[in-house]
Amino acid sequence: MTQDDRYVIGLDYGSDSARALVVNAYTGETLATSVKYYPRWTKGLYCVPSKNQYRQHPLDYLEVLEATIKEALAQCDPDVAQKVVGIAFDTTGSTPCFTDETGTPLAMLPEFAENPNAMFVLWKDHTAVKEAAEINELCKRWHTDYTAYEGGIYSSEWYWAKALHVLREDEAVRAKAYSIVEHCEWLPAILTGVKKSSDIVRSRCACGHKTMWHPQWGGLPEEEFLTTLSPLLKGFRDRLFTHTETADKPVGHLTEEWAERLGLSTKVVVAGGAFDCHMGAVGANITPHTFVRVIGTSTCDIMVSSYEEIGGKQIQGICGQVDGSVIPGMVGLEAGQSGFGDIYAWFRRLLAYPLKKIIANTGLIDEETKNMLIKETVDSIFPALNAEAEKIPIGESGIIATDWMNGRRTPNANQRLTGSISGLTLGSDAPRIYRALVEATAFGSKAIVDCFLNQGVKIDQVIGIGGIAMKDKFVMQTLSDVLGMPIKVCREYQACALGAAMFAATAAGLYNKVEDAQKAMNSGFAIEYQPNPENTAKYAELYKEYQKLGAFTEANV
Amino acid sequence: MTQDDRYVIGLDYGSDSARALVVNAYTGETLATSVKYYPRWTKGLYCVPSKNQYRQHPLDYLEVLEATIKEALAQCDPDVAQKVVGIAFDTTGSTPCFTDETGTPLAMLPEFAENPNAMFVLWKDHTAVKEAAEINELCKRWHTDYTAYEGGIYSSEWYWAKALHVLREDEAVRAKAYSIVEHCEWLPAILTGVKKSSDIVRSRCACGHKTMWHPQWGGLPEEEFLTTLSPLLKGFRDRLFTHTETADKPVGHLTEEWAERLGLSTKVVVAGGAFDCHMGAVGANITPHTFVRVIGTSTCDIMVSSYEEIGGKQIQGICGQVDGSVIPGMVGLEAGQSGFGDIYAWFRRLLAYPLKKIIANTGLIDEETKNMLIKETVDSIFPALNAEAEKIPIGESGIIATDWMNGRRTPNANQRLTGSISGLTLGSDAPRIYRALVEATAFGSKAIVDCFLNQGVKIDQVIGIGGIAMKDKFVMQTLSDVLGMPIKVCREYQACALGAAMFAATAAGLYNKVEDAQKAMNSGFAIEYQPNPENTAKYAELYKEYQKLGAFTEANV
Repeated sequence: MTQDDRYVIGLDYGSDSARALVVNAYTGETLATSVKYYPRWTKGLYCVPSKNQYRQHPLDYLEVLEATIKEALAQCDPDVAQKVVGIAFDTTGSTPCFTDETGTPLAMLPEFAENPNAMFVLWKDHTAVKEAAEINELCKRWHTDYTAYEGGIYSSEWYWAKALHVLREDEAVRAKAYSIVEHCEWLPAILTGVKKSSDIVRSRCACGHKTMWHPQWGGLPEEEFLTTLSPLLKGFRDRLFTHTETADKPVGHLTEEWAERLGLSTKVVVAGGAFDCHMGAVGANITPHTFVRVIGTSTCDIMVSSYEEIGGKQIQGICGQVDGSVIPGMVGLEAGQSGFGDIYAWFRRLLAYPLKKIIANTGLIDEETKNMLIKETVDSIFPALNAEAEKIPIGESGIIATDWMNGRRTPNANQRLTGSISGLTLGSDAPRIYRALVEATAFGSKAIVDCFLNQGVKIDQVIGIGGIAMKDKFVMQTLSDVLGMPIKVCREYQACALGAAMFAATAAGLYNKVEDAQKAMNSGFAIEYQPNPENTAKYAELYKEYQKLGAFTEANV
Repeated sequence: MTQDDRYVIGLDYGSDSARALVVNAYTGETLATSVKYYPRWTKGLYCVPSKNQYRQHPLDYLEVLEATIKEALAQCDPDVAQKVVGIAFDTTGSTPCFTDETGTPLAMLPEFAENPNAMFVLWKDHTAVKEAAEINELCKRWHTDYTAYEGGIYSSEWYWAKALHVLREDEAVRAKAYSIVEHCEWLPAILTGVKKSSDIVRSRCACGHKTMWHPQWGGLPEEEFLTTLSPLLKGFRDRLFTHTETADKPVGHLTEEWAERLGLSTKVVVAGGAFDCHMGAVGANITPHTFVRVIGTSTCDIMVSSYEEIGGKQIQGICGQVDGSVIPGMVGLEAGQSGFGDIYAWFRRLLAYPLKKIIANTGLIDEETKNMLIKETVDSIFPALNAEAEKIPIGESGIIATDWMNGRRTPNANQRLTGSISGLTLGSDAPRIYRALVEATAFGSKAIVDCFLNQGVKIDQVIGIGGIAMKDKFVMQTLSDVLGMPIKVCREYQACALGAAMFAATAAGLYNKVEDAQKAMNSGFAIEYQPNPENTAKYAELYKEYQKLGAFTEANV
């Protein structure tokens, strides 16, 4: 460390936990990491899984903010803290919350402290299915389809659907609600001492993707649209925003109070917020024609494209197309599979049935051995399946599956679709079915890549981040073979937090633009998969069968 | 027992073992049962499972014949043996063997004692796939389609395909082969001292179903057809037969040698032979408009119909239609599902993957406990699945499966079809998938029943025999609900052997016809399932989905 070193902190707020990375702002070297789980959330508070109600208390966010930053800094040299120049956040989304006039989430007020409707409505909360349907219905008959840049179908996971649902549900919230804030907007606002909801800097990424905000129609949907949707929405548009900002711009500096709480200086610049995968794509070194995939239980797929390439086109069938949502000055494109690792996990749960239902009750072995045996066995299922499945020749089993066990996000969202497995014989054993499921998730990926390619958005390479990308060689090689493209895997496991750190460094003025931060701070790649052209040709044949099976399913929902 | 009591012995030769029933010829009461496994077969001799080669040595049949009859008689009063008046056999089929001029299976000759090609070719031997294809090809372009009464598609499991395959394979057998005998014909022949192959009484059931024998074309296919198929078949037709006989007719009396070996009198009448399911249907009390199903790994479904009902029709899409194959004087109709219990067993194997692949290698428990635990767990899978599956409301899971994991025998044989499972979500757990598989096997049953009904063959009720019919209440209730028909389950577990006993009693002259023997000797029913009309209506909707999924599979093979 030299006198001139500068550091930034990237914070990544996931569904269950947040992590802070302390990063050298010039080299991208990670000095320290800290991960903390949300305390109330971990206890299951405010959630009703059977109703798909998932709410998070704002205090959970603040407590882990302080805890992670302090813990990470404690791992560093004592003078690192004073050389921190920037801080930035990415979060899940759409995760909105009603606020009062000061921009304070209602659950921070004593009378709403235990009211789930006054809290952040987590992305995966599905209580607003009815409201989403109403929005879609109205959009299709309005003079402007406000979902045009959000893939054409509004989701129950998004902003307006959730807001309307909560307003309908809760009279007390309805009476007090003045404005709405996204999770990724609130954290910068609170750290910089925002006192009026109108002063909150609105995230281009969040608003472009989830609030139907677009310059083409002057920002948010017009008041008449919103009040036609429901009179309960009257007045919100004027109290919300017309302007949004990209995450490379500073929102402000740390307040004295927060500087003290976090052990940082009031000179620290706070950058704008964005959604996790979007900053993750930056952290993973996204460039035009690079398809970045966060591969976990599902995938979030991010592309950036120049204005020249996109022109005036609306890319069809994807999740969203937002100017500056990823890299300012470029069009960000989002897609994703509703199920990826979740599909493998479903199959593992299936195979674990005798363990959980029968061995768990046996009298043959004592409880401790039983628990060890069940754990050891469940943990060994994927390694065993992978080892056997990768030896099976392509096409040998005749089994074809689709990957829609959790619906289909892209291409062409349809949450009513379900998964299928065809070509089963009495010889279809677990490794063969597992292989078909892995192939199905790769075929689902190909469908997305083809959706871009067919609309003139070029893709040269794939970058993978997330748990499966880093660990699962068989899955990743299959994906590379099916796509016929190389796949690089980002070396930094916390690519989202690293991306946030790049935004922090840019907002702090160390770089002119985020691309410069990427060049200096990227972590490089840990692994690179190369497609085998023979396998790619074989998979092209199987992909036709996947498409046929999919077409059958679509015709019958 | 009174002075006037008479007894008969019914012998049922299955795939792995034979069983003898000593039965009161007037009341049908079973006095004794003995089951013996084929000794050479049990050791795996003469079989190559990887090639689907399954051969059985004729000595296996003779040894278990003596052993079962002696063991069964040993359980009875000493004077029962002398009051036995008849004996009859049912066997698997088509299970043919080449013989010399005396009707002796070649493997009984010293120079062929160890030659699998000189032995009986068990029904499930699939070595003659190529020859079956050639027969089908020739039948479709010949002036007469000789498969017309065998469902329209000749199988590799049948007589001529097997005979031609063996002739091609084996020069020594080719040089010595004079004639061919079916397993169910050979046992009566040897017990009655037949010395010339031309004196063997040919089974109406076996010949009508498997040799393309039919009175319409004067017996077997014409010589030119057979020699066009292959010159190797030259001359066999003349040395075989033109006449066949139903199983109620006596073939002769026990020879002195066999009477002594078995401890019976030379007055014992030996009846004609037939295939197992056909005699099983008689034992289960088949009548016109009754659909008798032997439900095990697969199903064999038997109907009888009057000449008036059938008229000159060829019932399409079934396995065979043979005058007198079940009850003399009626048309016997055969159908069946290629997979039934085998499909459940496949799913159990799938779920047992972690047990066989992981727990089998754990170091956490000792070998003995491990083996006990695996056995206990595998044995508990079906009970656990049944208990959970039957509580799931019809249609709740959205999962639809087809039952073609082992191809489809009827309706409309197509061994290239495969099974599918659709409607899968991340919540599709093992009991839900199992329930869908049970429903799929019931839908496959409905397709067969509808095939008969649509061609004017009336079905009023179903009678079930076999392991699943006797034991699996959830499966049987589902079947009854799907069919919308009552199902009675035969009380006698050994319904095939009981049927053989009825033929023995008729051949021995105690009854004028088999129906009279049925009336006197039937075992009654142990259980009766009644369809729930509400469930039947719900299943009718799911059946449409099954048909759609099936049509997709058929369009894509």
